[in-house]
Amino acid sequence: MNYIDLRSDTVTLPTQEMRDAMYNAEVGDDVYGEDPTVNHLEETAAEMFGKEAAMFVTSGTQGNQICVMTHTNPGDEIILEEKSHIITYEVGGIGRLSGVQAKLIRGTKGAMDPSDIKAAIRNDDIHQPKTSLICVENTHNRAGGTVIPMDILQNTYELAKNYDIPVHMDGARIFNAATYLNIPVNQIARYADSVMFCLSKGLCAPVGSVVVGTKSFIAKARKFRKMLGGGMRQSGFLAAAGIIALEKMPSRLNEDHENARLLAEGLCNIPGIKIDMETVQTNIIVCDIANLNMSADEFSSKLYEKGIKINGGGGTTVRFVTHYGIARSDIETALESIKSIFDKKHIS
Amino acid sequence: MNYIDLRSDTVTLPTQEMRDAMYNAEVGDDVYGEDPTVNHLEETAAEMFGKEAAMFVTSGTQGNQICVMTHTNPGDEIILEEKSHIITYEVGGIGRLSGVQAKLIRGTKGAMDPSDIKAAIRNDDIHQPKTSLICVENTHNRAGGTVIPMDILQNTYELAKNYDIPVHMDGARIFNAATYLNIPVNQIARYADSVMFCLSKGLCAPVGSVVVGTKSFIAKARKFRKMLGGGMRQSGFLAAAGIIALEKMPSRLNEDHENARLLAEGLCNIPGIKIDMETVQTNIIVCDIANLNMSADEFSSKLYEKGIKINGGGGTTVRFVTHYGIARSDIETALESIKSIFDKKHIS
Amino acid sequence: MNYIDLRSDTVTLPTQEMRDAMYNAEVGDDVYGEDPTVNHLEETAAEMFGKEAAMFVTSGTQGNQICVMTHTNPGDEIILEEKSHIITYEVGGIGRLSGVQAKLIRGTKGAMDPSDIKAAIRNDDIHQPKTSLICVENTHNRAGGTVIPMDILQNTYELAKNYDIPVHMDGARIFNAATYLNIPVNQIARYADSVMFCLSKGLCAPVGSVVVGTKSFIAKARKFRKMLGGGMRQSGFLAAAGIIALEKMPSRLNEDHENARLLAEGLCNIPGIKIDMETVQTNIIVCDIANLNMSADEFSSKLYEKGIKINGGGGTTVRFVTHYGIARSDIETALESIKSIFDKKHIS
Amino acid sequence: MNYIDLRSDTVTLPTQEMRDAMYNAEVGDDVYGEDPTVNHLEETAAEMFGKEAAMFVTSGTQGNQICVMTHTNPGDEIILEEKSHIITYEVGGIGRLSGVQAKLIRGTKGAMDPSDIKAAIRNDDIHQPKTSLICVENTHNRAGGTVIPMDILQNTYELAKNYDIPVHMDGARIFNAATYLNIPVNQIARYADSVMFCLSKGLCAPVGSVVVGTKSFIAKARKFRKMLGGGMRQSGFLAAAGIIALEKMPSRLNEDHENARLLAEGLCNIPGIKIDMETVQTNIIVCDIANLNMSADEFSSKLYEKGIKINGGGGTTVRFVTHYGIARSDIETALESIKSIFDKKHIS
Repeated sequence: MNYIDLRSDTVTLPTQEMRDAMYNAEVGDDVYGEDPTVNHLEETAAEMFGKEAAMFVTSGTQGNQICVMTHTNPGDEIILEEKSHIITYEVGGIGRLSGVQAKLIRGTKGAMDPSDIKAAIRNDDIHQPKTSLICVENTHNRAGGTVIPMDILQNTYELAKNYDIPVHMDGARIFNAATYLNIPVNQIARYADSVMFCLSKGLCAPVGSVVVGTKSFIAKARKFRKMLGGGMRQSGFLAAAGIIALEKMPSRLNEDHENARLLAEGLCNIPGIKIDMETVQTNIIVCDIANLNMSADEFSSKLYEKGIKINGGGGTTVRFVTHYGIARSDIETALESIKSIFDKKHIS
Repeated sequence: MNYIDLRSDTVTLPTQEMRDAMYNAEVGDDVYGEDPTVNHLEETAAEMFGKEAAMFVTSGTQGNQICVMTHTNPGDEIILEEKSHIITYEVGGIGRLSGVQAKLIRGTKGAMDPSDIKAAIRNDDIHQPKTSLICVENTHNRAGGTVIPMDILQNTYELAKNYDIPVHMDGARIFNAATYLNIPVNQIARYADSVMFCLSKGLCAPVGSVVVGTKSFIAKARKFRKMLGGGMRQSGFLAAAGIIALEKMPSRLNEDHENARLLAEGLCNIPGIKIDMETVQTNIIVCDIANLNMSADEFSSKLYEKGIKINGGGGTTVRFVTHYGIARSDIETALESIKSIFDKKHIS
Repeated sequence: MNYIDLRSDTVTLPTQEMRDAMYNAEVGDDVYGEDPTVNHLEETAAEMFGKEAAMFVTSGTQGNQICVMTHTNPGDEIILEEKSHIITYEVGGIGRLSGVQAKLIRGTKGAMDPSDIKAAIRNDDIHQPKTSLICVENTHNRAGGTVIPMDILQNTYELAKNYDIPVHMDGARIFNAATYLNIPVNQIARYADSVMFCLSKGLCAPVGSVVVGTKSFIAKARKFRKMLGGGMRQSGFLAAAGIIALEKMPSRLNEDHENARLLAEGLCNIPGIKIDMETVQTNIIVCDIANLNMSADEFSSKLYEKGIKINGGGGTTVRFVTHYGIARSDIETALESIKSIFDKKHIS
Repeated sequence: MNYIDLRSDTVTLPTQEMRDAMYNAEVGDDVYGEDPTVNHLEETAAEMFGKEAAMFVTSGTQGNQICVMTHTNPGDEIILEEKSHIITYEVGGIGRLSGVQAKLIRGTKGAMDPSDIKAAIRNDDIHQPKTSLICVENTHNRAGGTVIPMDILQNTYELAKNYDIPVHMDGARIFNAATYLNIPVNQIARYADSVMFCLSKGLCAPVGSVVVGTKSFIAKARKFRKMLGGGMRQSGFLAAAGIIALEKMPSRLNEDHENARLLAEGLCNIPGIKIDMETVQTNIIVCDIANLNMSADEFSSKLYEKGIKINGGGGTTVRFVTHYGIARSDIETALESIKSIFDKKHIS
């Protein structure tokens, strides 16, 4: 069967142009700083984000974990939104790799209220860890691909500066946020000291993410990348695809957003499926299926039988993600199939 | 000035009987297991709590941290109530010493709902850390010295056993809980695999806490105690006071609870001071003073001028703690003084 | 200038066949286990090494660090040769990532005497960490690319089994060892519970190494790879080159060894340069230049002016490495140039 | 049987004067800095060692581990003598608590050659950890209680300052060194940025050690002490004995040294027991019994039957320690007993 794969934008395959670029890539030993294609990617990324320097990493998780390692000291506390990717899907890395504990704040559509952040910052007290980092996720994956409002970003950053605490942005899908806001990414990145963004996912590169920040931050981060084994040799092959991802692919994200909107509107007409349409801003749809009286795993199994892949889970929430390779017609096909499953059934 | 010190029950001074016991203590090298007084304390504690073995430690923080180290592996996740002592006042130790991250759950009067705990337990998934410990705090300090209801303890423990996850109880003030419930501590301790309780605080020993659990747990814990430098030599001096704390002092905690009740009733009659009287179960009173239009620091300064010590803080919450050395007459004096400060003033 | 680059075999560029294979690679999302090329590489590697399972990683450092994380618990001690790559060039990772301390043993030509290992294994004592891993490096980089004798490997492994301690082999250049011994790699790998080997270096793949071991070991290791950010998406591009590295490139390593021999014989005829010719077994030459009365940095600068790149350092030791892309004629040219520099000079 | 206990000076029992001082101690809550006796001990110690500040800890291990935590960052490397207490007997704490790896140097009579230290300091290189601490042990336990020569201390310290690396001295028995050298401890302490020394051991306090250093160092260290659970409440009881240990007990160490000398001279006349008499400088004797053809465990068992306790071990080395409570007559008795065991036997 030819599946419509709506599990994640991580499944995107590279474009032909990327394959060509990889084939022709000029490479060198990047641990010695001698890979011209990696260097070009890093320079391009730094400039686009308005930062001094950039570093190529093999994944978003690696980028986020290195940033936490670089900003903090073991024994510190960091502030995270309670459903953020870093705390949920990075295998407990902040505890083991950075030795920090997290103060979790419940956000609204993924956005932490700056007054909650302020209340969470620790006093200078012998019983208490130092608050040494605030992490913002933009767009926020588990909240439904939501974009953090610019005034919240700005207020958070100014608050952080008052307390001399750095801000890291998990911008795995920051280009989706920029697309939604219709502004260049550097306008978002200015409210963070470090940003990690992904070349894979919606931008379709096969492998890789980038961390941007000050020169001294990136220099320190490079050593942690080496420690984690992320220092690669002729990584210009991956960077060659990454350059195309960065320069040519952001302009197509609107299409994913329109497809997500179309899909969400169709899904929320199915009795038993609830979607907060205000959260459908980019390419992710989170549905509450509690009223269908089935688990997320059962739900995803039923869709799988109809040729649609999504990620299930233990609870009653399911997620759909649109991306390169998913056309408007796929969305229409998927909707028809899903409607046929739940027609006049399962409603509580 | 002769201050009435209501900051914490940690300020309690040992009784004369304790001084005498320390003076006459028979001691030996406890790292070799040769201190008879320490051995006696540990045997007594194990028996009283219905556990196989016990270990003397220098503080509640040391006991809690060792238990987290012993139950978990770095990279795991542990479940904690969001205002628990372990996450708030133990200097970020779980991150640095154990390399674990915390999933924080908002409790009700300090008690986590077992269904929230169940939802927080991780799936077996490559992105996710393993949930390897559930911690319960009883009584719960920041919730106001509240006692965790026995059915919640039981349900939590049974849930944990279903998932093969151990339960640790931070029972720094478990004797206050037992006093409130009017049951022996072993009935509470049965719903935990390890319990840490304090000999200092309300029980008045100068220094020390105890961890109880299975023999194999305590054997492993002893090695971590040594690593933290908690292996002491002739510690029988401290244990001698601890034995009296354990055997003779629990029966006097009722007095602290009555004093706390008296104080709370008086305080909540002062306009601008709010107390949830349902939380005034043991020896701790948490007041919300937001309506007084002053910070906790200002509030505590004003009381200090009148001879009353309490712990301020950055927010609008203040805490009073009753303990050995504070008589009913001290409470009456304190109430008069506080009323005189806020008489017809500061009301918003 | 067209440099003869003898710094390291990490600078090797991929073959045309590798570029072609990358161009045509069939890829998928490897975090979901769906990249057919990665799966093929891992199956091939496991079979070749006689192990149950394999995992692709981005570097030798990542592979080694993951193996240490997987075999040990923080607080343990591991046994390493004192000049091993893990302790020297992996940025202190074992301390930070695994929380273990190292017992360092001085080897002979990189090989630790099993009786020294035996003496280093800890007793079960409350003061002492548990010895939980023995690491062997084969070939041994800093000892001069030396091959660990098979009887030492066997004795070490049997000793380890007696103490129920796992053995990890840093086999970054294990194919050089197999070439020298003229045996298949699985005969070497049988004396280790886990082996890390590199597809880059002499085998010329642009990026990547592989860890092999039991199925349960690799399953646990995959989670640590994800934590370090080594979980990649369409990594089949890198694996495609890796398959060729694994299947076609080992047979050419003899050429590097012959070139190294030729170079070493020439170098040791230069007054002031000392080489222990017994260590010149594979593709690495370590020279003691103390008698030249110049630092390694000065020495490498002088060679650089003549078009030869090598790695200097703070001491009086320099290293030459032969590899793919270095022909016999390059060696002859290099020797002529070096001789011309030190002709009748610098001898102490 | 009334044993002559030569296992360690940790078994010393407090003097009557110490018991009296403990009985009468004025105490307070030391976490609030309100224990006058602890404060007095810390001030006395700082002054005696010529340092700005001091902190009471529960053990030498706790003091050493806190100093490593305070001087370093996880991922760093520290330089240690290969048989030092920190690496041998502190349960692997530097790996787990500080996340650092150790570069081990073989000393001569416990003293590391400054040129070896210099060679071990790392370059600024992306592959390498930062060298962030040098630890010196004085007297050196496993080398036989040897005193580090003053010129080596000075040269080490000056070297360290050139590289901007702090020096920590594990001075568990620094008063034995000062006694041997016949100088005040501050003359030794000047060649270290932090010093840990024990009040227990030869100075006979029941529990406790002290760390001295700059004010900012001690302030940072106090937070780590709290994290390890070493923050105690009414710890003035222990400090009261500590003050007597510090002020009155150093002058009696000469007696232990003389007893050790007497014992060593007797032991080395027994065929099969080898002692490097140059190492018998203070109160520790390390004997090589390889020629007795018995293990250290067997040796110690035989002595135990005759009423003499020493620490055995897996190898062929045994240790005797003299201390308060061991009189010259005990040494004579012990020697007679030991001679009677090995008379005309066991010689190889």
